Amino acid sequence: MSEPADAVDQDRLDKPKEGFELDEAVVDAVEDALERNDHAEVRTLLEPVHDADVADLLQKLSGEDRRGVVEALRSDFPPDVLAELDERVRDEVIEELGIAETVNAVRELETDDAVHIISELEDDQQELVLKAIPPQDRTLIEEALAYPQYSAGRLMRRELVAVPIFWSVGDTIDHLRATAEADPDALPQEFFDIFVVDPGHRPVGAVSLSRMLRARRAEPMTEIMTTEMKVIEATTDQEDVAFLFRQRDLASAPVVDSGGRLVGVITIDDVVDVIDEEHEDDIMRLGGVREDDLYSAAIETSRSRFTWLLVNLGTAILASSVISLFDATIEQMVALAVLMPIVASMGGNAGTQTLTVAVRALAMKELTEANAWRVIGKEVLVGAINGILFAVISGLITWAWFRNPGLALVIGMAMIFNLIVAGLSGALIPLALERMKIDPAVSSAVFVTTVTDVVGFFVFLGLGAWLLL
Amino acid sequence: MSEPADAVDQDRLDKPKEGFELDEAVVDAVEDALERNDHAEVRTLLEPVHDADVADLLQKLSGEDRRGVVEALRSDFPPDVLAELDERVRDEVIEELGIAETVNAVRELETDDAVHIISELEDDQQELVLKAIPPQDRTLIEEALAYPQYSAGRLMRRELVAVPIFWSVGDTIDHLRATAEADPDALPQEFFDIFVVDPGHRPVGAVSLSRMLRARRAEPMTEIMTTEMKVIEATTDQEDVAFLFRQRDLASAPVVDSGGRLVGVITIDDVVDVIDEEHEDDIMRLGGVREDDLYSAAIETSRSRFTWLLVNLGTAILASSVISLFDATIEQMVALAVLMPIVASMGGNAGTQTLTVAVRALAMKELTEANAWRVIGKEVLVGAINGILFAVISGLITWAWFRNPGLALVIGMAMIFNLIVAGLSGALIPLALERMKIDPAVSSAVFVTTVTDVVGFFVFLGLGAWLLL
Repeated sequence: MSEPADAVDQDRLDKPKEGFELDEAVVDAVEDALERNDHAEVRTLLEPVHDADVADLLQKLSGEDRRGVVEALRSDFPPDVLAELDERVRDEVIEELGIAETVNAVRELETDDAVHIISELEDDQQELVLKAIPPQDRTLIEEALAYPQYSAGRLMRRELVAVPIFWSVGDTIDHLRATAEADPDALPQEFFDIFVVDPGHRPVGAVSLSRMLRARRAEPMTEIMTTEMKVIEATTDQEDVAFLFRQRDLASAPVVDSGGRLVGVITIDDVVDVIDEEHEDDIMRLGGVREDDLYSAAIETSRSRFTWLLVNLGTAILASSVISLFDATIEQMVALAVLMPIVASMGGNAGTQTLTVAVRALAMKELTEANAWRVIGKEVLVGAINGILFAVISGLITWAWFRNPGLALVIGMAMIFNLIVAGLSGALIPLALERMKIDPAVSSAVFVTTVTDVVGFFVFLGLGAWLLL
Repeated sequence: MSEPADAVDQDRLDKPKEGFELDEAVVDAVEDALERNDHAEVRTLLEPVHDADVADLLQKLSGEDRRGVVEALRSDFPPDVLAELDERVRDEVIEELGIAETVNAVRELETDDAVHIISELEDDQQELVLKAIPPQDRTLIEEALAYPQYSAGRLMRRELVAVPIFWSVGDTIDHLRATAEADPDALPQEFFDIFVVDPGHRPVGAVSLSRMLRARRAEPMTEIMTTEMKVIEATTDQEDVAFLFRQRDLASAPVVDSGGRLVGVITIDDVVDVIDEEHEDDIMRLGGVREDDLYSAAIETSRSRFTWLLVNLGTAILASSVISLFDATIEQMVALAVLMPIVASMGGNAGTQTLTVAVRALAMKELTEANAWRVIGKEVLVGAINGILFAVISGLITWAWFRNPGLALVIGMAMIFNLIVAGLSGALIPLALERMKIDPAVSSAVFVTTVTDVVGFFVFLGLGAWLLL
């Protein structure tokens, strides 16, 4: 009879899974096994788990349990797990794994993954790992590392299939079969296009594999190749690469060096990672976080969020100093202090709505000079329409609450004014920042809400002082 | 000699492009041509432009110019342009194009694109278009439309390559070549995997084309196929599909009906669109916008943003009613009214930082029950650390500004308390909403900022009333 603890685990493991993600029961079972220090059980549990899911598991465990899993898997740590890990967790895993095992793992990866991991290592670790890699592999990696960060050169894989212009479909297939038998590692594990290159190794066309397979053996590659492929320079920014793949529904694209020679290929799976990164950057910056810090230590997270909060403290003090201009007014009519956050808050929210749409449209290249004025005009109009609606609603509520029609009029007028300002600044500020080459996702929110706070307090209290006292 | 206007245009068109996006000079040239009502020129200008860029152009033009371009292209409107358009702009284009031309365009598309377009039509238009499509195509489209919105069944393409288990590599290649010659439209334009099916048409394995090409003709397909492929049920939610593709770096995956029979294939380019959509939803909802409304009319946009602003008005009034509890206190000490927005605003920003990280991590399935308590604990600690730092900073500023050490103490204490509350609610509220199956991206921000506003005002004014008067 099995132990009750095991029976329970098995029961939980057999539960049908809802989605495709890592089963929480596996996490629990691994944690239990680690508590019993049963490394063999950890290995058995993780044996059927996909590398990407093992990476997820490592990220979800506490630091101590994470080290336990690395210890259990040490003898043959799956290389692809390293490639899938978040940078912070990977640093910890590599520290635990040691240089020798890390190098073994990195050497089994394709160049794009190896370059990605090595580029994110600390300088001293980077040097140690590079030194331990055999010269021919090292050269490829060092060449890629010489390209700027976030460039196509960093993203590309060096392993690709290129054939000379005089080959036929049959020549190409024979070459692939012969190579696969002689040295399977000489071909990329998975590829989507075969590139046709001239004698100077410049790409002149591409043949998708599905085109290849329906062609007769005798057909020349140049007959079936497409010459409309987009060639990417190695120094191109990865955001532009992502835009191109998205726009043209590409599966892969050739990368050339400054001399136009084919040096690598970028495949759609790497681009998906770039798209995810871009999304993460946008969403984090709009939320006032420098980067996703889920796996950072508390002290590191506090430090990285401090700057944004400090900027916000500055703008809050600016808003307070506007209020202090009217302290005599507030003393005479405390209702103004009670109501003033409403006007500012509505402006802040309306401005955030507009800037969210604008920042996203800028990132997707949907908002450009061609339609900028039309968009600004529309946002002002939207601000005016909702301004009038909320002027009526907040005016009626104020009237009912304070039985003061003058106060109701003041809040209504301030509301219309502030919501128009919100629409205008919510559209104009991101556009202006983009023009000044400042990332609109980082700084739009602080500018827009400062404007709507300052204008909101000033107009409401100012109108109050002028009309009510 | 050419006309000066043309010369200028040509000069602008020849300018080197910075990225891969549509050249603004083309937009200007098209607008000029439309002004001169020169439809031939519009066609000439757009002839070399990729369909996806034509779609971008249509989106950037004013309504009138857009109708002009549709008019110019009417005779052979490129079908793929329809597939690339934003829903709102597409509705306008289809209205201008008319049912007959729309049907012609839709018939040339692959089923996934056709289904996507038809599913987004108004009910009466949908019926007209479906009726005009020949029965055999219509059945495929209607079957796909029968699957729930946002499911794999809607996303999949019906065109795929499946072979019986007893075929060899040679059989498969011969079949592809023969089919390509007999009826090129019978094969999907582009595909990445060949599926091996049993006599019940259930997928038993997949062979990637790059694996195909390096195999000998005599090898049985079952020998080289992978059986570890992930099979997707047609009713699976598209977000789970996206997660799977991302996690496993898939190029394509088979889709089966409730009987396990192979009915379609989902390819990575469709998944990239889903990833972009998902991201757009997250970012828009966090910003209080229902959906990207860049191309909506002002009145439609105002209406869709109204609800969120109304909710915000409710929470602002709640915060105001907290302030009104202390109106006597404020009357005695106006400095409290001047400073109170600082504590609330810092809490709101700190809470937004935390909830942004939490919402993103939930969407990427990185935050689950396995690490929820660790994340909450960390966020509280981060709140405490930054709370103490900003207590000191804001305390010193208050002291210098109002020369009142008691007031400095009150703002410091309130700051610590509110930033801890911000960390706690910023992590807890998205997790609780996710558990209650409510989209945390939609509603977290309003709950968290309500909490930090109410707590901020209450603690600051309450401590002020208690300690200073």
